[in-house]
Amino acid sequence: MKIVVDAFGGDNAPQAIVDGAVAAVAAREGLEVVLTGDSEKLNALLEGRSRNITVLHAPDVITNDDAPTSAVKKKTRSSMVVGLDALASDDSVSAMVSAGSTGALLTGGFMKLGRIKGISRPAMAPMLPSLSSQGVVLCDCGANADCKPVNLLHFAIMGTTFYTAMTGKENPAVALLNNGTEEHKGNELTKQAYELLKQSGLNFIGNVEARDLITGAADVIVADGFSGNVALKSCEGTALSMFSLIKKGINEGGLKAKIGALLLKPVFRKIKKVMDYGENGGACFLGINKVLIKAHGSASAKSVCAAVLQAAQLAEAGITDKIREGVAGFVSETAE
Amino acid sequence: MKIVVDAFGGDNAPQAIVDGAVAAVAAREGLEVVLTGDSEKLNALLEGRSRNITVLHAPDVITNDDAPTSAVKKKTRSSMVVGLDALASDDSVSAMVSAGSTGALLTGGFMKLGRIKGISRPAMAPMLPSLSSQGVVLCDCGANADCKPVNLLHFAIMGTTFYTAMTGKENPAVALLNNGTEEHKGNELTKQAYELLKQSGLNFIGNVEARDLITGAADVIVADGFSGNVALKSCEGTALSMFSLIKKGINEGGLKAKIGALLLKPVFRKIKKVMDYGENGGACFLGINKVLIKAHGSASAKSVCAAVLQAAQLAEAGITDKIREGVAGFVSETAE
Repeated sequence: MKIVVDAFGGDNAPQAIVDGAVAAVAAREGLEVVLTGDSEKLNALLEGRSRNITVLHAPDVITNDDAPTSAVKKKTRSSMVVGLDALASDDSVSAMVSAGSTGALLTGGFMKLGRIKGISRPAMAPMLPSLSSQGVVLCDCGANADCKPVNLLHFAIMGTTFYTAMTGKENPAVALLNNGTEEHKGNELTKQAYELLKQSGLNFIGNVEARDLITGAADVIVADGFSGNVALKSCEGTALSMFSLIKKGINEGGLKAKIGALLLKPVFRKIKKVMDYGENGGACFLGINKVLIKAHGSASAKSVCAAVLQAAQLAEAGITDKIREGVAGFVSETAE
Repeated sequence: MKIVVDAFGGDNAPQAIVDGAVAAVAAREGLEVVLTGDSEKLNALLEGRSRNITVLHAPDVITNDDAPTSAVKKKTRSSMVVGLDALASDDSVSAMVSAGSTGALLTGGFMKLGRIKGISRPAMAPMLPSLSSQGVVLCDCGANADCKPVNLLHFAIMGTTFYTAMTGKENPAVALLNNGTEEHKGNELTKQAYELLKQSGLNFIGNVEARDLITGAADVIVADGFSGNVALKSCEGTALSMFSLIKKGINEGGLKAKIGALLLKPVFRKIKKVMDYGENGGACFLGINKVLIKAHGSASAKSVCAAVLQAAQLAEAGITDKIREGVAGFVSETAE
């Protein structure tokens, strides 16, 4: 199993990316990683740790300031595009991971790999932490700002496949992100999507509100990319803000608070682990012809490692073929 | 200043409503409260505490299970409708507070009080806690699931007026809830709304992401009611989940954790105060011809008191007239 990793994407590149790749090959037997980026710098960082790791030279870098489409077209020697080209042209490469510009990765992934037949809109889906389950897949979390009802049906099919590939659970519970739980609730989009989902044959359990994203009320939560993005960033932002409030309170609370914090350290550590949005790997770009994972822009070595292992797991599970099969039954009725 | 309070709306009615009303009249000189609901029950609860409080008999109750429009039309003797009728017909009544069904209150408020000329869509706006400012107004948080760009402009005007009335700060910073901070980001709705807001003459500072709802990056955040609802419930849900994780961790952490929790009690209490979505009163239904406040369904006596005092403050500030003036400049160009 060979996986390409964009070694120059993200805030902590290349150090965290290299460390994450080294950890991933150590953790999984038979895994090979191809790092893309400046070969001199990468070889220096790999010094003595290059077992099962090769380097593909790419002198250029796409940044978040680059306009996605023109960057993918013009920066052909960037670590991201060299990686995408390898993924698209080399049959021995099963998947790719990048912590770089989301827009460029979406554009590039779509352009270079093409979409699965029947899926009108590929989507971004992270596996999010939840309180009471193995995690929640949110699909779409930001690839499609404007959606039609049929897109949400496809997101449900892809999210279901993704969830099963990650957790082994067949027929996961799918819910629609809405502004109320009752069937008649919603905007024009969700009202129509509700009807499609009800008739889909998926394990559709109805509407959930945004507060259920974290409680684990459903395994797969379907949303248009705008609302999904709002939900994701609200949860993440609130969790981070609460951690910083606790930290501030402890710092300003004198000796008593500091001793209290010390005694509660195991509790805080556990909560941080539950609420860690990097712990479960990255967001999968579902609906294109190979496995492509977007790691968090501020991914640490640990989350890069998780994302690489996740990519391997998804490739091994044959998620692309499974989405192709899953959508095939719907194509004739619903494709645009 | 006379304020009507629906004494039979919300999970903790009538006890918490009566206690909140009693606390409010004690806290503000010259405030009178009219409680609507079963007079026998209310008089029993008020026993000896009825200074500046009168009761308006209403034997019926609208519940969350009632369909909003038909409930408002048919349950004419319900505590909510009797209150709305008093607000609409009695010039001496300045405002109303209810913790009852949001849908019924929106429908009833709109039907009985009418909308301000030039405002096509009234909106719900809570004052949310934030880390670095006096709070954030989110407008709309759920009244309008589908919006046009001009609605968002009106939300910005109303939100600005609301913020100033609540905090005294003139010209508060207005931002648009979006899926990225760059100007070109967004869905069709936010891209067009951005242009209107840029030319509005308001203190428009651009896009914010959902994670900034809590950081206080803007004073007023404008959103369609669907996304606003998603953002609000995500933040609230995450905060509640984290509190329950902390509680669970302490309960399961043995003596050490319990001592730690005791030492950190002042820190936790402070955080709970910052993150308390009831602390700042209720959500204001902006754009109708009188002040109408929706308190949280699970409002405690403390939040009912806060909502009543907020209603008094908004009525005293003449918010309805100010919104009328604020929108007047835009009416000819932008009204539907």
